[in-house]
Formats: sequence, C-alpha cells, structure tokens
Amino acid sequence: MGHSTALLTDQYELTMLAAALRDGTADRPVVFEVFARRLPEGRRYGVTCGAHRLLDAIEAFRFGPDEIDIVGNFLDDRTIDWLRSFRFAGDIDGYPEGELFFPDSPILTVRGTFGECVLLETLLLSVLNHDCAIAAAASRMVTAADGRMLFEMGGRRTHELAAPSAARAAYIAGFAVTSNLEAVRRYGIPGAGTSAHAFILLHAGLAADPEATAFASQVASMGPMTTLLVDTFDVRTGVAKAIDAAGPDLGAVRIDSGDLGRHARDVRAQLDDAGATETRILLSGDLDEYSIEALRAAPVDGFGVGTSLVTGSGAPTAGLVYKLVEVDGIPVAKKNSEKATHGGEKRAFRRIDHHGRAVAEIIRPPKSPPQPTLRELQASLMRTGVRTYRETLADMRARLATGLQSLPAPGLDLTPGTPAIPTSMET
Amino acid sequence: MGHSTALLTDQYELTMLAAALRDGTADRPVVFEVFARRLPEGRRYGVTCGAHRLLDAIEAFRFGPDEIDIVGNFLDDRTIDWLRSFRFAGDIDGYPEGELFFPDSPILTVRGTFGECVLLETLLLSVLNHDCAIAAAASRMVTAADGRMLFEMGGRRTHELAAPSAARAAYIAGFAVTSNLEAVRRYGIPGAGTSAHAFILLHAGLAADPEATAFASQVASMGPMTTLLVDTFDVRTGVAKAIDAAGPDLGAVRIDSGDLGRHARDVRAQLDDAGATETRILLSGDLDEYSIEALRAAPVDGFGVGTSLVTGSGAPTAGLVYKLVEVDGIPVAKKNSEKATHGGEKRAFRRIDHHGRAVAEIIRPPKSPPQPTLRELQASLMRTGVRTYRETLADMRARLATGLQSLPAPGLDLTPGTPAIPTSMET
Repeated sequence: MGHSTALLTDQYELTMLAAALRDGTADRPVVFEVFARRLPEGRRYGVTCGAHRLLDAIEAFRFGPDEIDIVGNFLDDRTIDWLRSFRFAGDIDGYPEGELFFPDSPILTVRGTFGECVLLETLLLSVLNHDCAIAAAASRMVTAADGRMLFEMGGRRTHELAAPSAARAAYIAGFAVTSNLEAVRRYGIPGAGTSAHAFILLHAGLAADPEATAFASQVASMGPMTTLLVDTFDVRTGVAKAIDAAGPDLGAVRIDSGDLGRHARDVRAQLDDAGATETRILLSGDLDEYSIEALRAAPVDGFGVGTSLVTGSGAPTAGLVYKLVEVDGIPVAKKNSEKATHGGEKRAFRRIDHHGRAVAEIIRPPKSPPQPTLRELQASLMRTGVRTYRETLADMRARLATGLQSLPAPGLDLTPGTPAIPTSMET
Repeated sequence: MGHSTALLTDQYELTMLAAALRDGTADRPVVFEVFARRLPEGRRYGVTCGAHRLLDAIEAFRFGPDEIDIVGNFLDDRTIDWLRSFRFAGDIDGYPEGELFFPDSPILTVRGTFGECVLLETLLLSVLNHDCAIAAAASRMVTAADGRMLFEMGGRRTHELAAPSAARAAYIAGFAVTSNLEAVRRYGIPGAGTSAHAFILLHAGLAADPEATAFASQVASMGPMTTLLVDTFDVRTGVAKAIDAAGPDLGAVRIDSGDLGRHARDVRAQLDDAGATETRILLSGDLDEYSIEALRAAPVDGFGVGTSLVTGSGAPTAGLVYKLVEVDGIPVAKKNSEKATHGGEKRAFRRIDHHGRAVAEIIRPPKSPPQPTLRELQASLMRTGVRTYRETLADMRARLATGLQSLPAPGLDLTPGTPAIPTSMET
C-alpha cells in the first residue's frame, strides 16, 4: 500500500493501550485468538483467506507524524511516545490461505505483549472477515460450476478498494479470471473482459443495424476469438449476427438476461448448426451458487458472477472475532451468556481417516501428545514481527481444492446444513 | 488517495474504448445515467451518498506508466496513446449527497464522449453502490433510534479500506460518532471509543478482582466521564464496581450481550439508586434497525452498531446500474426482457404538495416546461472535468433529515413495503 495502516483501527484500542501503559499491564505477555463462534447460517465450512494481505498491513502499521496528529487528540504524551517507535514484534501462527475452517477453529493465534497485540484487533478482523467471506461464497460457486469456468466481475457491486481483494479471494477459491484490472496488477490474476450493451447501442444511428456494426467493430479490434454480447435486442438474431461478424471461429457469446438455461440450449443448437461447434457460451446476470447449480444440465461453458460473489452470497462478513485467551500463562475467558469464550492457547488439528477423509477438527492444549491421524493446521506466519509465510496463489488454490475433496460427502452440498465435520475441544 | 484510480475498473471498458477508437465512434457525444431499477426488497427509499468520493476518484483517474504497463498487455498502441493523455473532460449532474431516491431516479447523469464516459463505469458504480447501500441502512437505524445516539463501530466487519467510507455514510445518515480513526482523519467525523472485554481480562492474576482493577485503571487514564464495559462477568456486579471506580459522575456503561432490554431497565434502576442519574447506558451486540426499534421503550441513551451497518443490513449493494441512454442526441435503450432501459436524457423532480409533503418522483424529458410544485433534484457536480460540487457533511445530514420528514407517513416504517412515493416517467 505504501501508506501506514495504523489508523485502520478503532479508537478504543488506543485508549486501552494508554490505560495499560499507565497501570503497568501493557507489557504483560498475552495470547489472542481469531475464530468464528459459528459459520454463517447453513454453511458447512469456512475458507481462510487474507493472511498475506494481513501480513503486509501489519508491516505497514506504523505511527508517523500524520497518524500521531490524529491520535494525539485523545492520548497522553507517554502513549504517544510509545506509538512513535511502535512496530509489532510478536509471533503469529495461523491456518494458511485456502484452508477449511469450522466453528471454534483458531485460524489465527497472536502472541506478544498486550500493547502490541491489542492494536491489531480491528485491522486483522477487517482483512480476514472480508476475505474469508468472499472466499467461502466463491468456493460454493466453484463447486456448483462443476468444472466450468467462473469469471469474477463483481467490482462494481462492492467498495472500489475492496474489489481487488474480492477478486483475489475468488481466484484462490478457483475462479479462472477477473475483470478487475487492479487485481491483475496487484496479484497477477488473469484478466478478462467481454463487452457491454452500451457498445452495441453506441452504434445507433450510424448504420441500419447497430448490433451487426458493433460486432464487426469488436471483431476487427479484438479478433474472432473475442466474446460477443448477444442479448441486447433478441438472442437468436444476435447470435446469427455474431457468427456473421466473426465466422465459425468466434470465441464465445455472452447472454446476460432472460431465461438463461433455455437461451443456452437454443444458442448451442444454433451455433452447432452454423458450424461454430467450438464457440463457447458464457452466462451472466445476477448468478449465484444456486442458479449456477440449476444450470448444471445446460450447455454452458462459463459463468460470470458479480453481486453475489462480492457480497458473500448472503454472508458478507465471516463472523470472525479476536479474543484474549491467555495472559501471562493464565487462561482467561469471558464468562457471560452467549458470548463466552474458551480460555487458553490452543493447537488445531484435523483428524483424517485412513481413506484420507476429514473426520473432525480437534482443538487441543499446546502440550498434548502427538497422534499420527492428526494433521496440524496452523503454520508460522510471523516471528518477532518478521513474516515467515509466503505462498503463491496457486498453492492456496491447490490447498482448497484438496481440502474440499477431503470433506465427507454432504460437506459440498449447497443446501443449508450443519458443519461438514464436528469441532472437538480437548481440555 | 494520491494514487491513480485508473485500474479500479474492468478490462472490458478498455477493450470497448479500443474498438470505438478504431471504428470512429469513441468521440460520439453520449449520455450515461446511473439509476436503480428497483430498491432492495421491501425498502421504501434509497439515500444518495458518495458523490464527493466519486469526484475525488475521477480527478485521480489518470494513466501513468504503472497503469500503462498493465493495460499495454491487451491494448493497441493507438489506444495506449489516447490513455496517456486522458482526463475526463465531460459534465456530471447528480442528486447531491443525502438526497432520497426511488426506482428509476437518475441519480447521476454523465455527458461526454463515449470514450471518456465508458471508462468511468466501474469506478462510479463501485463508489455509489457501496456508499448508497450503507447510507440507506444507516438511515433506517437513525429512524429506529428515535433521537438516541448511534455509534458506528463496524470497521472490523468490512474490508479495511471500505470501513472509512462506511463511517462517512453512517455519519451523513445521522450517526453521532465513529470508532474508525481513518474516518476521523479523512472526513473529520467525531471519534469515540469505549473499552473491550480484553482489557478486563488483561488484569487477571494481578489482583483479587480483575474487573474492579481494570475499571480503576480506565478511570485513572480517561477520567470518570469514560464508558465502562460492564458485562464481562455479571452485569449487576459490573455496574456496582463501575460506580465504585468512577463515582456517580461516571459517563456511561456499555452492555454488549444478553437480554439488552432487561439489562437496560435493571441497570437504569441500579444507577439511579446509586445517584448516578446522569450516567448513560449504551447498548451494543449485533444490533440492527429492528432490534433498535424493539428497544424503543427501554431506558437506553445510545446504540453501538457494527455488522448490520457496514453490510447494509441485508442489502450490501445498492443495485445501481450505469446505462447509455443517448448517443448523438438519439435516445437509445436495451429492449430485451427484464433489463430494458428508458432511453433519452432526463431531468428529475420531486413533486411537493402544499403541506411540504413529497408526493411523487417525476422524471421528465430535458425540455419540459417548468412547474411550480416540482423541486429539481439534480445539481451540477462537474463541468468539463472540473468539479463544481462541494458540500459539508453537515449539509448532507441536514438534507437527509429534511427529506425523511417530507415522506408520507408509511415511508419511515421499517416493515417491508413499496417505495414511499411513486416514480412517474413522463415521455
């Protein structure tokens, strides 16, 4: 980012720091944990996403003169001096990106002094709540698409600076391409694009047939392997003009409205009759995992997904919380009502049976004896403030694909259900 | 932002530009319009928000060497040259921020050449879809709170860079304060903060009573006017310790879990009995407009709202689209199915009756004769690429408050319903 991330936080973290510096508790060694009390309603698994973005943001969490100007309005001099030289110097372990998670999975464990750990709360939750929400929705769409290509095109339906992160999460979950150029630049995700109805309408008044004129222009500019948008007026005549313009080597047609399944079948027949047997059919228009699954029998080669992806398909935030679980070696926990927490540092494992199937998420105390059927889930992400975790997006994609295959059968159902595997807390 | 915003867009806008430059249509004068085909399900009005952010982003929409590096991978030299010297030089009119809108309200009208207008599509929709969604949800919460203070604390439940924009939208809608420090810096919104359960738990093992110790520490650091979080263990004993620590001048207590209405009544009585009659009660914990309204009879002074606010309370994106409506003076429209559009440039008015009540949204052709009962809704936002619109957040807050008062009575109901006033398209 280049900029400091230190103000992407909540005021109370700084006032808690000030009180802790004053009463001598700011340097107590603590352990914080990130977890979800529950998955979004009916979801069977969560997907971790955002650790690389988070580590970048932590490295940029420094208080320069601009940040001190703001926090100086409500903090004492001692706290301000402490902040001037602050950098996070603790340890972070966590589930790597593309890992599955379940209720109470400790997807991140942060160790350090109270002062340094409390300051990261909001930044850390913002990154992970957003990215995990998008990755989980995207993963369900990938399952629904059953091998057909998914095209991320939701940038216009989310905050302009959230859009590249959403594209990244979708790619980790298995989407093939993104329309978002900032995601192309920042993350090297393959970019793609088709055309909009506006491009057809632009040619109104110039020729007898604006659609044919626009198609010819697009093919002249992009070559016949381009994707022509055929539903501006009438799909059948649109497809005929598309073939006229590009010939049977036309790359693809996109249909963005109407009864998509019926259109796909009709258009496939029309394309095949015209010898355009390799021309692909792409569908878009308010698709989500359910409508994608419903189109499973239709002759579709790919789906463009926007709104439902970037809004988490009904679950726009992952419900992750950041809780203090240990102070100076003593487990601590909030005891009140529905928000009670499990005190103490934990290690997380997945029990795998001899067929390679995931059976349970096992959360154990740090010094529990090893067991051969348990795969450890956390990796080292940061040591004394220095990042220790770097992976490629391809690694993360592969991890998620493998993880999904390991789930017991109902785990991939899109219908509402309980978590695919139970979480067991060993104390 | 400092950075170029030119890649916060979709690849197809640039390939459409390339084709239009090649076929000679890139310089055709066009009119694009931003509108919502419908409001989110059951909503009675929309709230415009984001125009200032959008104008900033358009001013920063320039293709420097870093941006050219990316688009150069798929564009021809002529298009690249065109982009090197590009700046938007068209005109933009729109509803000012804090205005109400309804289905088909043209909340933004963009005039210029096709080339310059098509490039803004994604950026413009990203900004407005996000900010309008948050402002609309926030406005419903302000109505539900019925004069009591609302505290924006949702940064951790949305993308870290969307959070300041969400805080801004909430403030325009009438929220009193934000926890988000970047929103304080960038927009001058009043900041506020309380304390977290972690601060209480931090004092475990140091004294017989960590809660009392933590309260004493917070009061020593922040003074008695601070807000103490009283539900870590038991609310009644928490409140007693809070008064012990701060005396009857304690600023406020916050309750974040449990049966909030019952707690509020019990705590009010407890505070009053202790002479802390001025101590305020703040509630938080997964509140939305419905739970806030349900607490109307409880003795509550303020509400902290997070998740439901930043996720648009069920409608995380505003459903705004950007459509070409006129080319070279000719109205154009997509004709197919459910996504048909209304061609032609339009002017927007609100019909106000002699009691000052809004009666209808009237969309008329540009040259319609004036009528005294019609208030024009669009203002000039940009002329030949130079911004002409600047208002304070206070102006926008006042506009929205006035607008809401003008709605016919069911318009402010939180229950699902139809738009508060009908939209009439005069052709």
